[in-house]
Amino acid sequence: MSQEKGNKISVRKEWTDYILSLQDTICRGLENEDGGTSFITDEWKRPGDGGGGRTRVISNGHVFEKGGVNTSVVYGKVTDIMRAQLHIDGDEWFAGGISLILHPENPFVPTVHANYRYFELYDDKGEIMDQWFGGGADLTPYYLFREDAIHFHQTIKNACDPFGQELYPRFKKWCDEYFVNKHRHNEARGIGGIFYDYLRTDEERDVKEWMNFSMSNGNAFLNAYLPIVHRRKKTEFNEEQKKWQEIRRGRYVEFNLIYDRGTLFGLKTDGRVESILVSMPPTVRFEYEYHPAEGSRESELETVLKNPVDWI
Amino acid sequence: MSQEKGNKISVRKEWTDYILSLQDTICRGLENEDGGTSFITDEWKRPGDGGGGRTRVISNGHVFEKGGVNTSVVYGKVTDIMRAQLHIDGDEWFAGGISLILHPENPFVPTVHANYRYFELYDDKGEIMDQWFGGGADLTPYYLFREDAIHFHQTIKNACDPFGQELYPRFKKWCDEYFVNKHRHNEARGIGGIFYDYLRTDEERDVKEWMNFSMSNGNAFLNAYLPIVHRRKKTEFNEEQKKWQEIRRGRYVEFNLIYDRGTLFGLKTDGRVESILVSMPPTVRFEYEYHPAEGSRESELETVLKNPVDWI
Repeated sequence: MSQEKGNKISVRKEWTDYILSLQDTICRGLENEDGGTSFITDEWKRPGDGGGGRTRVISNGHVFEKGGVNTSVVYGKVTDIMRAQLHIDGDEWFAGGISLILHPENPFVPTVHANYRYFELYDDKGEIMDQWFGGGADLTPYYLFREDAIHFHQTIKNACDPFGQELYPRFKKWCDEYFVNKHRHNEARGIGGIFYDYLRTDEERDVKEWMNFSMSNGNAFLNAYLPIVHRRKKTEFNEEQKKWQEIRRGRYVEFNLIYDRGTLFGLKTDGRVESILVSMPPTVRFEYEYHPAEGSRESELETVLKNPVDWI
Repeated sequence: MSQEKGNKISVRKEWTDYILSLQDTICRGLENEDGGTSFITDEWKRPGDGGGGRTRVISNGHVFEKGGVNTSVVYGKVTDIMRAQLHIDGDEWFAGGISLILHPENPFVPTVHANYRYFELYDDKGEIMDQWFGGGADLTPYYLFREDAIHFHQTIKNACDPFGQELYPRFKKWCDEYFVNKHRHNEARGIGGIFYDYLRTDEERDVKEWMNFSMSNGNAFLNAYLPIVHRRKKTEFNEEQKKWQEIRRGRYVEFNLIYDRGTLFGLKTDGRVESILVSMPPTVRFEYEYHPAEGSRESELETVLKNPVDWI
């Protein structure tokens, strides 16, 4: 399936086929678990430039209050803003990725985010100058269940390990360092997972190996998340617990709009705003100086967010 | 009251006294109009460096669901991040300002923001190198009432006019250009007001004149806002109208976290996070592809936000 381009091998066709198929699989799995509603699909084209995307949105389900599972396959000329923001050079680019965020209604079911993406850069003869994979998945619970945290991390570790035992710890650390609200005294957004970027051909692995690594992670997503949803979705909750979830969702908004590179890059380069901001939680609260009671389950979560845990 | 510093005159003492007194006046006026609750006060000190602030927060009143009226009087050594973000040079700095945002519960009462601030910069001998005023006030309604928009703008224009007829149009335009969600196809945050910055001594006015200009605007704030609150606070509203307000509040969040220079500068320079983010609305909604019905009052507002109006 790979296409030869100069002396580097393009995997854009193979990767594109993969993310479109993964999107189908993930949406089907989530719909089954939800049991109350289906995703709607919006296909869009980039105005003026090449490519487009397939945005899938779920809302007001039995489990998922709001969520998006999006693919985009886009390409074009390298612009000045890309040169500045991405620190890249070159003439043309290609990017294909799948990105998802799910906000469950029940505060005992965690929010999840995952993203797997591939980038190619070409010189003015159309030859590949650079190519890399990025991605990861991370969990944002409102109440901490150790078994959920361990299951999520273990499933991801199992997907990483065949490609090298050192990868999970390395990308777990990157995740803990990236998803942080620095202005909140370095509070983590959630309990982590993995995050990686700029995975290029190096002495140990070529870009095709990194594609397989990303596919292994993409394939593990439902296994990492659905068992947790299944265990927690029928837990009863009260108004105070819902309110706590909405306050924590506020921190999610803060991270996404202040720090998240994908979000900011999309918004500043005229990306499709509705597809980008489908990541925002459905209902959110911001309260002045809200602090959970000492010793409460809410306070237990805050403690973990301030001190990342090695779950495995 | 002014202090001589080098060959420029410092107005920091006079300005500091003014903003503290204005904070008292504004809080009293808002409490009277609310009739249901009072502001709480948190005084804070900058850790390590000089100065601090007085944060005043109102919540769950009869009128105001959440709001903050804050002063801060801070000073210190010029840091690298300040050099980069503010494009300033110098050895030490002083900043004194009052900043407020009010989020009413009733969607027929507009949200309002105002801010008046003064900055001084010193060389290594403690002499003033630069000094300037900034500020403004802007209104964010959820439903448009022409008479409210005209009253707000006219009151501000009346405060500006004694200092030069050209000032209101110039600063009104600056406001229309600044409070814009560019990623939302250049939708304005609200129906404007005025915005100004870097008002320094020039051929026409010295910095003391700009202080008087800022004081005139600060003194006009309650007159610009309270009559509107008074007219609208008893209007009945339904769930759909509340929901519309919460969706629009989402746009307020987007502007504040993506573009607002004061917010981002504060968060990135270790400002007191709770005082900075007291500006966030209490409850917010983010919906995918929410569009009000054509010809509705909600859609009328959207039209005005996409095409700024000359209200006077």
